[in-house]
Amino acid sequence: MMQEWMRLDAAVAAAGSVVGKKEHAGPLGGCFDLHDESDRFGKKTWEGAESEMQRMAFGLALSRCGMADRDVGALFAGDLLNQCVSSAYGLLSYDIPYFGLYGACSTCAEGLLLAAMAVSCGVWTACGAVTSSHYCSAERQYRTPLEYGAQRPPTAQWTVTGAGAFVVGQAGRYPERVRICAGMPGRAQDYGINDPGNMGAAMAPAAADTLRRYLAATGFSPRRYDLIVTGDLGFEGGRLFCDLLRAEGIDLGGRYADCGQLIYDRKGQDVHSGGSGCGCSAVVLAAYLLPRMQSGELGRILFLGTGAMMSPDSVKQGENIPAIAHLLELESPKLAGAERS
Amino acid sequence: MMQEWMRLDAAVAAAGSVVGKKEHAGPLGGCFDLHDESDRFGKKTWEGAESEMQRMAFGLALSRCGMADRDVGALFAGDLLNQCVSSAYGLLSYDIPYFGLYGACSTCAEGLLLAAMAVSCGVWTACGAVTSSHYCSAERQYRTPLEYGAQRPPTAQWTVTGAGAFVVGQAGRYPERVRICAGMPGRAQDYGINDPGNMGAAMAPAAADTLRRYLAATGFSPRRYDLIVTGDLGFEGGRLFCDLLRAEGIDLGGRYADCGQLIYDRKGQDVHSGGSGCGCSAVVLAAYLLPRMQSGELGRILFLGTGAMMSPDSVKQGENIPAIAHLLELESPKLAGAERS
Repeated sequence: MMQEWMRLDAAVAAAGSVVGKKEHAGPLGGCFDLHDESDRFGKKTWEGAESEMQRMAFGLALSRCGMADRDVGALFAGDLLNQCVSSAYGLLSYDIPYFGLYGACSTCAEGLLLAAMAVSCGVWTACGAVTSSHYCSAERQYRTPLEYGAQRPPTAQWTVTGAGAFVVGQAGRYPERVRICAGMPGRAQDYGINDPGNMGAAMAPAAADTLRRYLAATGFSPRRYDLIVTGDLGFEGGRLFCDLLRAEGIDLGGRYADCGQLIYDRKGQDVHSGGSGCGCSAVVLAAYLLPRMQSGELGRILFLGTGAMMSPDSVKQGENIPAIAHLLELESPKLAGAERS
Repeated sequence: MMQEWMRLDAAVAAAGSVVGKKEHAGPLGGCFDLHDESDRFGKKTWEGAESEMQRMAFGLALSRCGMADRDVGALFAGDLLNQCVSSAYGLLSYDIPYFGLYGACSTCAEGLLLAAMAVSCGVWTACGAVTSSHYCSAERQYRTPLEYGAQRPPTAQWTVTGAGAFVVGQAGRYPERVRICAGMPGRAQDYGINDPGNMGAAMAPAAADTLRRYLAATGFSPRRYDLIVTGDLGFEGGRLFCDLLRAEGIDLGGRYADCGQLIYDRKGQDVHSGGSGCGCSAVVLAAYLLPRMQSGELGRILFLGTGAMMSPDSVKQGENIPAIAHLLELESPKLAGAERS
C-alpha cells in the first residue's frame, strides 16, 4: 500500500484575505484585511469582482512577506466558476508560472497541499495558493439569478464572497511562521447524496473518510489537536461529520469547528446551514485561524478542505454528488521545541 | 530569479487511449487502443460517455503496467466540462487520492508535470495523469447544441473525442520506458485575442513564450530535439507559433508538429483548423508519440500542452482569452547512454 500521508516541511510565509459586505458584517468581520460594501470591487461584473478579490488578496500576501513575482516559483489556484475564470483572469497580472486547480470548495487545501509539497521537496523555495468564491457569481451559475428570488431549503448554505491567498515557503526560512508539517490528499467519495440543496451531507462522509484514514495511518489521536476544522460542511454537514466519526469510535469532543459555521451569525444573518464556497475556508484560515496559531492561542490544528464536485448539469442528469476532502496539519511557531513534529 | 525549469527523473510506465468514431477514422486511427463507433460508450449522456472514456483509458494504463489502485499514490486529472465532471465522475471508481486540475487543453501536460514532480521528489513511487474531451459535450457547453447546425469559421478547431491516461513512475524503476527528464510550467498570457473561433491564435503566444523561456534557461537548441510538439494549436495557431519564434531568431525547421494537425485528415474530415480539446494532445501522446519514442524512432522531444482559459461567459462579457502552455522534455529509452540527460 502506497503511503497515504506525507510529512511536509513548509510554512505559511504570509496570507491575505478580501471579503464582501456580509462577511465583514459577520462575527469574524474585524479579522479580514479588506472588504467592499458593494461586493463589486470596482468591476462591472460579479465575475470580474471575484477575479479582483483574488488579485488583491495575493498582492497583500506577497507584500506582507516582502516578495515580488520573481520570488514565487508557481501559483496553485482555482475557484468555482466554469473554467475557473476567477483565477485565470484574477492572477493574469502576476508573471508567475500557473497551475490551475479544480477541487470545488476543497481548493484552498488542495492548493496549499501542492504548494507545501513543492517547497518541501525543494522544487521551489516559495509558491502561492489562491482561491475565491462570490455569492453573486455562484448563485447565477449554480442556482438561479438573484432577481428570481428563489427559496432556499434549510439545509442550503450561503456562498461566501471572499478570496484567500497564501505564500508558502520552506519551513527553515520562516521559523517564526505557522508550519505545514503534514498532509494527506483525499479520495473522491460518493455516498448517494443527490440534493444540491444539502451539500454538507454530500461532503461530510468525504471529510470523515480523510480524517479517519489520517488518524489510522499516523497513529495520532484527536487529542493531539487544539482544533479539527472542516472547510464548509456547515451546521447540517458538521453534525453528520461528527456523527459518522462517533459511530466509528472517534470522538472529537469540543475540538471540532467548521469555517462555514464560524463565518456568519446563523440567526442574525439568515444563512440557513452556514457558509460555503472556495472562499469560505480560505478567508477563515487566512484571517482567523492562522493569526490565532501565530499568537500561540492554537498550538496544533487539522484543516480539512471539503469539496462537492458536481455540476448543475450533472445534477440535472440524475447523478449523485461526489465529494472530496484534503487534509493539512498545521503547527504554531509558539509550540515548545519538544512538542514540535 | 526562481529557477524556471526543473530536472525530472520520471518515466511513463504505461499509457492508455480511448477515442471516438471520427478519431478512429483519421490518419492515426490504427494507433488508439479503443474506440466506439457511436461515441456513446454505453452511456445515456455525452458527459457520461466522456467520463466512461477516462475510466477505460486509466484502467488500460493500470493493467498494462500491472498495477492496482493501491500502487498509485495520486491521480492528477481534469477536463473541459464545467466543474471538471468528466474526471470527478469518470475516476470515482478508483480508490486513489485525487487532485482535480483545470488547465483547459493544457491539462495533459499539467497533470504529467505534477505527476512527474511528485515521483521525482519521492513523494510517491507512481502517480496517474488522466484527461479527456468529447466533441458533443464540448459543443453544447461552449458553443451551441449540435442540432442547431451552427456554422464554423475556417479558424475553428474540432474538439477531439478522446481520453488519454498515463501512469508515471520513478525512472529508475522503468529503465525501458520513455523518460520525463525535464519540465517547465507555463505562465498565463493575454495577447488581446478575443475570438473564441480562433483559439489557436490565443494559445500560440503562450506556447512560444514557454518554449523561448525553456531554450533560454537551459541553453538547449531546437536541434537537440527530433520533434517539438504542441498540443492543439491547429493549422492557424501552429503557423503563428512558428512565425512568432522565427521573428525572435528561433527556427524550428522541420522539427515542428502539432497534435491537432496530426489527428485528423484536414481535407477529408472537414475539421477546418484541426483538432483541439484536452483529449487531443493526450491521445496523440499516448498512442502515437510515446510508441515512436519507445521504439527509438524518436529520440528526444519537447511536448507543449496548450490551453485557452476563457469561459463562454467571460467571452460574452468582452474579456480576452488568456492562454497557457506547460512543457515536458521526453527521452527515448533507446538513446545511447552518452546522449542521455
